[in-house]
Amino acid sequence: MNAPSQLALVPFISVENMMRFVLHVGIERVLVELASEIEADFRRWEHFDKTPRVASHSPVGVIELMPTSDGAFYGFKYVNGHPKNMQAGLQTVTAFGVLADVATGYPLLVSEMTILTALRTAATSAMAARHLAPRGARTMAMIGNGAQSEFQALAFRAICGIEHVRLHDIDPAATRKCAANLAGTGIRVTPCRSAEEAIEGAQVITTCTADKQYATILTDNMVGTGVHINAIGGDCPGKTELHRDILLRSEIFVEYTPQTRIEGEIQQLDASHPVTELWEVIAGRAPGRARAEQVTLFDGVGFAIEDFAALRYVHDRVKGTGFVQNLDMIADPDDPRDLYGMLMRAQA
Amino acid sequence: MNAPSQLALVPFISVENMMRFVLHVGIERVLVELASEIEADFRRWEHFDKTPRVASHSPVGVIELMPTSDGAFYGFKYVNGHPKNMQAGLQTVTAFGVLADVATGYPLLVSEMTILTALRTAATSAMAARHLAPRGARTMAMIGNGAQSEFQALAFRAICGIEHVRLHDIDPAATRKCAANLAGTGIRVTPCRSAEEAIEGAQVITTCTADKQYATILTDNMVGTGVHINAIGGDCPGKTELHRDILLRSEIFVEYTPQTRIEGEIQQLDASHPVTELWEVIAGRAPGRARAEQVTLFDGVGFAIEDFAALRYVHDRVKGTGFVQNLDMIADPDDPRDLYGMLMRAQA
Repeated sequence: MNAPSQLALVPFISVENMMRFVLHVGIERVLVELASEIEADFRRWEHFDKTPRVASHSPVGVIELMPTSDGAFYGFKYVNGHPKNMQAGLQTVTAFGVLADVATGYPLLVSEMTILTALRTAATSAMAARHLAPRGARTMAMIGNGAQSEFQALAFRAICGIEHVRLHDIDPAATRKCAANLAGTGIRVTPCRSAEEAIEGAQVITTCTADKQYATILTDNMVGTGVHINAIGGDCPGKTELHRDILLRSEIFVEYTPQTRIEGEIQQLDASHPVTELWEVIAGRAPGRARAEQVTLFDGVGFAIEDFAALRYVHDRVKGTGFVQNLDMIADPDDPRDLYGMLMRAQA
Repeated sequence: MNAPSQLALVPFISVENMMRFVLHVGIERVLVELASEIEADFRRWEHFDKTPRVASHSPVGVIELMPTSDGAFYGFKYVNGHPKNMQAGLQTVTAFGVLADVATGYPLLVSEMTILTALRTAATSAMAARHLAPRGARTMAMIGNGAQSEFQALAFRAICGIEHVRLHDIDPAATRKCAANLAGTGIRVTPCRSAEEAIEGAQVITTCTADKQYATILTDNMVGTGVHINAIGGDCPGKTELHRDILLRSEIFVEYTPQTRIEGEIQQLDASHPVTELWEVIAGRAPGRARAEQVTLFDGVGFAIEDFAALRYVHDRVKGTGFVQNLDMIADPDDPRDLYGMLMRAQA
């Protein structure tokens, strides 16, 4: 059997190679570069073909495909959400993605995206906060200290200048894990016994809890004027984290309104409640934070363009490095009309 | 860095391994087994979550995701269609697919699907013909002798008892290629100079041309009573092969009506024109061929359940064989909440 031609080979980034790549470049540098790529793609938001995600629901979870295209590249992410997986020692969310060439339809990259999604989620939050958080914010409360928390802390340090994080989780073991992981990063860490304690003196409040239900992580009286709330745990129908009253006195920023109305904190509000799309702020079409006393809220649910930017980024970054292996994934007969002949010749 | 755990590994079938698998089992046996799996899934049609395919169009082609689920498994295929690729020595259609476990959302298999799609398309056509073609059909005309033609010939021989194929293509080189590939298979092959000549004495007419336009491969006066037409080349908006008058006097069978109304030959007809879904015939809910003089038409465009059945089939068939390689695609930290810790420990 002949070796497959170059056209037949699709670069693949395994979990191990993604970890090696991130550690080689440095996690904070990856977060900064990712935020820059995501911001560049948000700036040209209108160039994108924005398909709603395609979800397949079952009683125990959801499997989604999130495609988008800018006319030159096409990307999609496969992602599941299975809250009970954790009890079985499995990941609640796993993901992989594909980048393809619109001109030929050929895949250009297959990549693990569990780690990459954690990175792009944190990079997006920090990018949003750079436009929305009060100037000089140095302290961030983090309520929910699960798989996303350390990535958020590092992204906010690298991109927004956060120096101090105040941690709280209903499970103290999660807070201990997060604090231990952040030890040695230079970020000052304060574990707190309650959400109220955590938000004391914080200019930014990040909520990233994982319960798949309507929860009230923050009530209205807990949130003072002038803070920025980075709400990323409420990300599917029936899952929210903030009391409705907080939403009513916040200036709300979202990724893609039709999706966030269904999945975000704003599912608690009328469909006509005004929100601003983050890309409009980035493109200079809408104001971000207008006044110091404003409460700003980034109601983040994760959008396909962020995954697209992340795939483009790693595709550029790993080209020609040892962080990829080639998959023989595309049948490439010498004569495109002779697929059968290729099969028969393989016998020889 | 520790070796990834079993949970992190997703079996992958490369193009080379797919060819090895098909040659090992035997192509006709694969076609027979595939047709049987597809038929089993068509019989339980109503169990499936049938999402329309998600298409991303560009001026030069289309990239599609075709997902479906039976509640236990979830599958999707990535497939492109770029007619001009051939001029550049690339495949017009390439594909790969993923099978996943609905209970956990974890991928179970990644597979090349260019070869597998050629096989499932031929198996589906022959399965349809087994229910629709006149009894004792032994001769098939094949108009269009491109990449799909040999697979069709072998599937019809193995599943429907076709012994003789009469070939025609506007490019004589395609006919020569097809005839050469079929030499030695035991199928009698007659190259023909015209479509009219090809259909002489044929009880089954297969049209599988590749031009992306409205074409008239068959006109009404060419089609005698009692034949079965297997029309698989008309498979996207703006691409048809048959004159409308043939449709008007045929009993038309389709895969999934909403999709075929857009993509199939019946895009030429009123949306109210009666058609029968093939699964209804297989499940005994609707008659197939009712009379010997009837013209039956399978307006095949390819449906997600066929790909799902094909993925399930190869997943079962290659388990524990040497035809798979494992991809380290799913991040699998010891503690699902400690993705960051996994990343940091990878440094050691």
